[in-house]
Amino acid sequence: MTCLFCKIAAGEIPANKVLDEPDLVAFHDLNPKAPVHVLVIPREHIANIAAAGPEQEALLGRLLLAGARVAAATGVRDSGFRLVLNAGPNAGQSVDHLHLHVLGGRSLGWPPG
Amino acid sequence: MTCLFCKIAAGEIPANKVLDEPDLVAFHDLNPKAPVHVLVIPREHIANIAAAGPEQEALLGRLLLAGARVAAATGVRDSGFRLVLNAGPNAGQSVDHLHLHVLGGRSLGWPPG
Repeated sequence: MTCLFCKIAAGEIPANKVLDEPDLVAFHDLNPKAPVHVLVIPREHIANIAAAGPEQEALLGRLLLAGARVAAATGVRDSGFRLVLNAGPNAGQSVDHLHLHVLGGRSLGWPPG
Repeated sequence: MTCLFCKIAAGEIPANKVLDEPDLVAFHDLNPKAPVHVLVIPREHIANIAAAGPEQEALLGRLLLAGARVAAATGVRDSGFRLVLNAGPNAGQSVDHLHLHVLGGRSLGWPPG
């Protein structure tokens, strides 16, 4: 197992976790771009959303709902937050394990990159 | 029915559609921020991800998978794309009907707003 996020999910690499659930883990981004910047990942290794299929439909729904729960847990649910998934080179995807960015705590500009 | 996106889903307001499916509709953003900028919405009126619940888990999973299908249909799946959901004031959510932004066709900067 060489994937960084698989190792975090397995507890082999420490992370500042917000959620630790049977199928999902959330932890603070090491290079935060907002006062709240948390990553939510499935324990299952999926490279990105382009590699996901209908068999992961429920898991992907839980991923988004977990993003909203992270926003609530970190106090930014009402002030507002942005959920971001990157896939491939033009999006600057940095780790090839599906991860949902949850950003909040400041006014977020438009366009989103 | 006063929601703009409900009217688009119902065909009462025209839109340049990419997908037109039983539970989801995708159409080009009128104010695109990238060569490809498409919005994917559920026909069901959900204000945003913070207002969604476990009963919408499968629908939300299909929303993300539809985002990846839009990326494929618009030719940006391999070059890369970003999926974005805004919720509330700090994210600049402009229409209170859940909508997934699909952006691609150029290098997308970081942070995402």
